[in-house]
Amino acid sequence: MRTQVGIVGAGPAGLFLAHMLQREGIESVVLEAQPQAAIEGRVRAGVLEHAIARLLVEAGLGDRMEREGLVHHGIGLLFGGAVHRINFAELLDGRGVVVWSQHEVVKDLIAARRAAGGDIRFEVSDVTLTDIESKRPSIHFRHAGHRHVLSCDVIAGCDGFHGVARPSIPPGALQVYERILPLAWLGILAAAPPPADELIYAHHPSGFALASMRSQHVARLFFQVNPDENLGHWSDARIWDELDQRLAGDDSGIVLTEGAVLQKSLTTLRAFVAEPMRYGRLFLAGDAAHVVPPTGAKGMNLAIAGARVLARGLTEFFKSGDASLLERYSDICLNRAWAAQRFSWWMTQVLHRNPRDNAFDLRRQLADLEHLVSSRAAAAALAEVYVGPPLERL
Amino acid sequence: MRTQVGIVGAGPAGLFLAHMLQREGIESVVLEAQPQAAIEGRVRAGVLEHAIARLLVEAGLGDRMEREGLVHHGIGLLFGGAVHRINFAELLDGRGVVVWSQHEVVKDLIAARRAAGGDIRFEVSDVTLTDIESKRPSIHFRHAGHRHVLSCDVIAGCDGFHGVARPSIPPGALQVYERILPLAWLGILAAAPPPADELIYAHHPSGFALASMRSQHVARLFFQVNPDENLGHWSDARIWDELDQRLAGDDSGIVLTEGAVLQKSLTTLRAFVAEPMRYGRLFLAGDAAHVVPPTGAKGMNLAIAGARVLARGLTEFFKSGDASLLERYSDICLNRAWAAQRFSWWMTQVLHRNPRDNAFDLRRQLADLEHLVSSRAAAAALAEVYVGPPLERL
Repeated sequence: MRTQVGIVGAGPAGLFLAHMLQREGIESVVLEAQPQAAIEGRVRAGVLEHAIARLLVEAGLGDRMEREGLVHHGIGLLFGGAVHRINFAELLDGRGVVVWSQHEVVKDLIAARRAAGGDIRFEVSDVTLTDIESKRPSIHFRHAGHRHVLSCDVIAGCDGFHGVARPSIPPGALQVYERILPLAWLGILAAAPPPADELIYAHHPSGFALASMRSQHVARLFFQVNPDENLGHWSDARIWDELDQRLAGDDSGIVLTEGAVLQKSLTTLRAFVAEPMRYGRLFLAGDAAHVVPPTGAKGMNLAIAGARVLARGLTEFFKSGDASLLERYSDICLNRAWAAQRFSWWMTQVLHRNPRDNAFDLRRQLADLEHLVSSRAAAAALAEVYVGPPLERL
Repeated sequence: MRTQVGIVGAGPAGLFLAHMLQREGIESVVLEAQPQAAIEGRVRAGVLEHAIARLLVEAGLGDRMEREGLVHHGIGLLFGGAVHRINFAELLDGRGVVVWSQHEVVKDLIAARRAAGGDIRFEVSDVTLTDIESKRPSIHFRHAGHRHVLSCDVIAGCDGFHGVARPSIPPGALQVYERILPLAWLGILAAAPPPADELIYAHHPSGFALASMRSQHVARLFFQVNPDENLGHWSDARIWDELDQRLAGDDSGIVLTEGAVLQKSLTTLRAFVAEPMRYGRLFLAGDAAHVVPPTGAKGMNLAIAGARVLARGLTEFFKSGDASLLERYSDICLNRAWAAQRFSWWMTQVLHRNPRDNAFDLRRQLADLEHLVSSRAAAAALAEVYVGPPLERL
């Protein structure tokens, strides 16, 4: 088998890259370990930055998002028993975010790939990458009972933090930056109306909580727990009690409506960056290269923004032999990734109870939140990063 | 002996309180443990917020400050080998800070006190406070070889973090919030021109450094060391080498001129708040109630702002018997103090190397600084707090 770009992983980064290459007439093959149904049902991120949502529209992927996605022009910060709204529309001349799930983006990308006749294979296994330093790297994999070797010009490693792409790079060639936080999120997807029209980020003495949504009928709710928490100890009733305390307690005005719990998850918060995002002819994209704590809602946005840069770099490379943008790929993406790390870290530390914190830190957090909602400049600084930076000029 | 307000401590809080009371015809006695020469030579803070500088002028204390103080309309942030200026004048419609030393403020306050014939006693010892819950609290002290009892209507505890006032309050009556940071500042006063026209806050892989000044001929320079550092191990030459590396290294463009080292000090960074700032007829002010890490340059400003509120509250109380402002004194001051804690903590954590930090945190700090100098909103949020909030409406 032969292709121009071998893409490992059918998440937002890999699929968006394949889509953009396809539009430029560049061949790729997408290999994914999971079944299609699994990745189309995998509930992950759910907030698209303004520029990323526009990018999806420009790429012909915006129809369902524009019909069904929810445009939000603010978020609520809940602390001290009251919700304070950060009004993006007023602070940022009308820009907002689009609440639209990662798995819906993935569905549309897979459908577009199928419609264009692109090669995409699910449930591949035993993936290994070879000759990545050469001009003809290969992906070895097993699919539908057969072994295959896919010979490529370039490989894109879009297979996430736990994927095989990054470990294929020799130790020492990457500089790794990492912080595993002593915090985790217990998340549920529930057949219930979301507690508020916009996302609510709650600071509570018992710990952070987040009220998000997938639609007007499906709530996505999270609350901070210890990383060693056992999901089995959390009955639905106990989860609702905890959410009720953190979101609806202290007469916050938020009303929590219970519903069937459709999914439960536990996620440890991690911050990770590998530099550079390239080794030879292997390019890393998305979570394979950088993981942000979820508090800032940046993971999917970074993945798509990075895939765009890679697609443009590969297009120049294949069309004119000009590798200059590809050479800058890692720097461009890491610049955005570090800005997102900063923001995600800050949102995390101001809203979560850290086991190391004492009473001073709790009051300091409340002063931080008070500052955010009393200083227009501070609110604008939050809003502009939450809504997202412009796409890089390439 | 009898007075209306017994004031323990002749720092900015105590002296400014005495001055403002004097102008309203309210009697006070100021008691200070140190000799006059010691407190007039004690080099401490050196940056006055815009509103605090104006307050000193309005209080008739501005002559020397307006003549000799340096008005600054910006600060420099040095990181990654380059100085980035935060331009207060442009971000804040012309407001700035005044670089004017705490001990100069203290000198003017003592001179004003003397000129008005106010009672101020230095080198008092064995100070104890009694009957602070009653309407006639007393200060017992020894002065010039004699024991005295000063009977008061109200006592103001302005004797700093290590003073006797706060410990006179029964345990349990105060809620204490505290963080001792694993960081210290080694500071020098040097007969040398300051390295820059404005203050330079330096982020360096070896740790924070600050280039400040007392005049155009006297530099005030600091750098981060471990709290267990032995000042005796730091020769002048070693100090200058370290400062040179952190401030003038990496072609920063900063030129460090050496000069005679006039003073050396070592200060552990601490954040502390005691609530409420009152017990019975004892009112705490300044560092007796709250200590901020010095990075934000807020300590003296908080002390003076708080003394203003206390003076106004006492004036109403003595003139009309109305205690309502006195009742609000603690809340008003603590609101300002927590905002200053937040800012000082943030400035501290973004600029210092914490022993717990790893390579990720170093990059995150650089992303934070990059954000500050690339987002007008973020720069404005810093500038407005650095230049200082307005005085409270009373």
